[in-house]
Amino acid sequence: MKALKNVWYVAAWSGEITATPRKRFILEQPIVFYRTANGIPAALANTCPHRFAPLDYGKVVDDTIQCAYHGLRFDRTGACVFNPDGAGVVPKAARVRSYPLSERYGAVWIWMGDPARADSSKIPDYPFMEPDPNWRLVSGYLRVGANYRYMIDNLVDVAHVPVLHGDMFNCPEMAKAKTYVEKEGAAIWAKRVAVVSAPPTLFDALWRQTRGDYVGPMDNWADSRWDAPSLISQNTGVALTGKPRETGIQTKNCHWVTPETEASSHYFWTIARNFLLDEALDKELRAQSERLFVEQDQWLLEALQAKVGDQEFWSMKPMLLPGDVGTVEVRRTVDRMLAAEQAEAEKISADAAPAGTPVAVTG
Amino acid sequence: MKALKNVWYVAAWSGEITATPRKRFILEQPIVFYRTANGIPAALANTCPHRFAPLDYGKVVDDTIQCAYHGLRFDRTGACVFNPDGAGVVPKAARVRSYPLSERYGAVWIWMGDPARADSSKIPDYPFMEPDPNWRLVSGYLRVGANYRYMIDNLVDVAHVPVLHGDMFNCPEMAKAKTYVEKEGAAIWAKRVAVVSAPPTLFDALWRQTRGDYVGPMDNWADSRWDAPSLISQNTGVALTGKPRETGIQTKNCHWVTPETEASSHYFWTIARNFLLDEALDKELRAQSERLFVEQDQWLLEALQAKVGDQEFWSMKPMLLPGDVGTVEVRRTVDRMLAAEQAEAEKISADAAPAGTPVAVTG
Amino acid sequence: MKALKNVWYVAAWSGEITATPRKRFILEQPIVFYRTANGIPAALANTCPHRFAPLDYGKVVDDTIQCAYHGLRFDRTGACVFNPDGAGVVPKAARVRSYPLSERYGAVWIWMGDPARADSSKIPDYPFMEPDPNWRLVSGYLRVGANYRYMIDNLVDVAHVPVLHGDMFNCPEMAKAKTYVEKEGAAIWAKRVAVVSAPPTLFDALWRQTRGDYVGPMDNWADSRWDAPSLISQNTGVALTGKPRETGIQTKNCHWVTPETEASSHYFWTIARNFLLDEALDKELRAQSERLFVEQDQWLLEALQAKVGDQEFWSMKPMLLPGDVGTVEVRRTVDRMLAAEQAEAEKISADAAPAGTPVAVTG
Repeated sequence: MKALKNVWYVAAWSGEITATPRKRFILEQPIVFYRTANGIPAALANTCPHRFAPLDYGKVVDDTIQCAYHGLRFDRTGACVFNPDGAGVVPKAARVRSYPLSERYGAVWIWMGDPARADSSKIPDYPFMEPDPNWRLVSGYLRVGANYRYMIDNLVDVAHVPVLHGDMFNCPEMAKAKTYVEKEGAAIWAKRVAVVSAPPTLFDALWRQTRGDYVGPMDNWADSRWDAPSLISQNTGVALTGKPRETGIQTKNCHWVTPETEASSHYFWTIARNFLLDEALDKELRAQSERLFVEQDQWLLEALQAKVGDQEFWSMKPMLLPGDVGTVEVRRTVDRMLAAEQAEAEKISADAAPAGTPVAVTG
Repeated sequence: MKALKNVWYVAAWSGEITATPRKRFILEQPIVFYRTANGIPAALANTCPHRFAPLDYGKVVDDTIQCAYHGLRFDRTGACVFNPDGAGVVPKAARVRSYPLSERYGAVWIWMGDPARADSSKIPDYPFMEPDPNWRLVSGYLRVGANYRYMIDNLVDVAHVPVLHGDMFNCPEMAKAKTYVEKEGAAIWAKRVAVVSAPPTLFDALWRQTRGDYVGPMDNWADSRWDAPSLISQNTGVALTGKPRETGIQTKNCHWVTPETEASSHYFWTIARNFLLDEALDKELRAQSERLFVEQDQWLLEALQAKVGDQEFWSMKPMLLPGDVGTVEVRRTVDRMLAAEQAEAEKISADAAPAGTPVAVTG
Repeated sequence: MKALKNVWYVAAWSGEITATPRKRFILEQPIVFYRTANGIPAALANTCPHRFAPLDYGKVVDDTIQCAYHGLRFDRTGACVFNPDGAGVVPKAARVRSYPLSERYGAVWIWMGDPARADSSKIPDYPFMEPDPNWRLVSGYLRVGANYRYMIDNLVDVAHVPVLHGDMFNCPEMAKAKTYVEKEGAAIWAKRVAVVSAPPTLFDALWRQTRGDYVGPMDNWADSRWDAPSLISQNTGVALTGKPRETGIQTKNCHWVTPETEASSHYFWTIARNFLLDEALDKELRAQSERLFVEQDQWLLEALQAKVGDQEFWSMKPMLLPGDVGTVEVRRTVDRMLAAEQAEAEKISADAAPAGTPVAVTG
């Protein structure tokens, strides 16, 4: 499918990978995940090369995954290390593809491209995702039936918030604010700020709960950062106008998107906050977020996906509005990166493949 | 899809179009319907031209439809008249397609072709659908998973009635009667009449209920009229042989079919009668009709559609029987009209389109 | 679809064909089965040649099948013999395809190829399926969502038994035994035998129940026979080592597979035994078999099918192991037979078809 390969995607929350095999499609590749007794996560192509049974139908035995059909076992490098049948012959070439993984920020990250280039230092920094007694995290997972690029659009785009999420984020001044785009290294920020008479419903309630009534105008900000390939993080908050943002209340959020297929995505979200660090608000934020993501964003994005199908975005001649400045910048950047990776892959392919070499299908 | 465009189709019963947006596919086009505060019905392409959200996910605000995603508003001509974001810029070219409508006989009619040619006087006359204290109507709607042409076949064809609907219309003399075809302007009639010892079960019951036992032979008739594109109306009834039809009891029916997709249709039906004008018979006729349409016709037509798929009718070499005279005449007429409209569209297209002009996709 | 045609397949268990029409797809052909008053089974193409209604929606009248739509009747040779409408005209050419059938071993067998070549003596011999007071049969039917060739693989292959069915057939010595291939006429045997300290769980239990504890080592055997096109039969059992197999306890089984579509199969199974001839064990064997077939084989084969889709088996470069000797021999034999039948069909087609002759579609 059309997605970057030589990049890190989130494959799962750490707690999702255990000694019980779990299947997940990433970039349309069926992958089985499991964890060894020592806690090392493993990711293998989910197809036994013998008779094509799905490996996730098997079980983990001695840090290997054992196929349910004929009992062949594969270790976490993908090598077949055991055949229970007859004299126990195992062909040397017998192996399945394994994928480089890295565990960070409570998530298992996967590298779908050339294993030699997998470098976990390329995962972006998310300081607020590190353990810190002053910050508290609420996380979740959602499968959304929409292409990952529509999800990026949605998460970078602040303009839709007062409309689609008007029940929690209604704020006339923010609606009329301008969106600014800033580059920070390879990252792209879409930022919006406004002086508001009353902040969006949710922040209004949280402020009153933690600080009481406020006097004087307030700043409200909503900044979204995009990192390749489809990692969005946000700063949102309110503070009295003229005071530093740190004196207000704010959340920092992650919205990590991983393509499942052309028309569906894995969505890993986290809301981090440095105020009201109790379980009651955890529960409330989880409930509100899931409602908002499912009943508003997912609801809309899946309807949109059903409508556009596999039509290319620009070929549909979208109407461009000033508020689209951030999403358009990100779209064009991803377009360029995809074109560059595609060109590189074609070059490698032209250099390397002898004519007529057949390739085994294990997908 | 393969269906006439420069014709009137029924889009909905009037009561189905309200201030709440309603989506319906007509000729495979996704269309959103709503009604203004003044009661004027509106039909727009159901896709926001900004980010392709389905407009029916939005709501009606000040006689416009407001998109759920970013709050853009479109009036009933399809023009974008409001953008809540930033400085409120709205590109001049921002619009969606709107469709000509006409409200008549308790239904909203839609014109899917060239708007300049939409002339509501071309809707056929159905005098018995006009308000009249001597006639009483029972109407309904059904979505049928079959191509509209199999539905026309079914509704024009009297030969299937004593077989498929034998429980209500068993009548040996009608089964053996000959079918006559008559033209009336552009309309085509398929007519059948027989002198019967006892009329079909339903009419037998209705006669006895209204008139008591009958003496002497009776005439029974069942006449179907087809009007372009897929509008069937019927006269059915019984009278003492030799007496005018008006002295008997009769129903006049409408069966209006609108293509939804190649393999599904909207079906709007009405049974009008000039006897036993009470609610009890309304209820009985509605229940019996729905049972008959769902358990007999829909059941069969959907099985037939699943079987033939998208094969062209004549390519399947259907066996032709004398009783098919009406359906074959209508089929050939629709074939000719489709070919003529197709030829005209190709001519317009060849005359008008400059080479290489891209067309925006908003479907 | 890619399957042999001039061969006998099992269409149904005899008890499944009655006076009520039953539809079944065989080699992707929709076929309606019924039985005449004299008990003769009939198989017709399930499409009325008049308006393409499915004949199984009709009913059996006077040993004919009557179409639900217009009441045309077809006898078991496929000839249209009655039209209730108008003057009752029936075109001479009006007929549907009929298929040769043969009733044997409690099953109705069907010939999908050239009717002139249908010779029921070509059905393989299954002596244990004949009525015999010393043998008792338990049979069943299952629809499996997998291509018939993966089902043949599964049924010929003994290597998977101790793994996939380890709960009933765990036996380390059998797992380590070698598989031998033997030809018997056109049939292919895959045989395995081992001296075991304890036979597989199921046989261990049955032996103790019928004979008490055993002394000394035992022979355990599992032999699978394949007959064209997709008929597997098995001998499995245990006996004291050195004693004739007849002195032990054994089952003889049939696993008859019939292609439904490229991705689904009909599966007719029988387990025959010559010990413990009571209803209690019938019930137990049926329950255990259905559990094993559904929860283990069907579960795996459908997952496998979903994974491989319509990729050609050898194109996927399967890993070959010594235990595959039987399945590979059968695969190559079926490949050869398919190629031969295909070559013959192309020759007949080239010899016979005048250019441009249209063919009626009644499928």
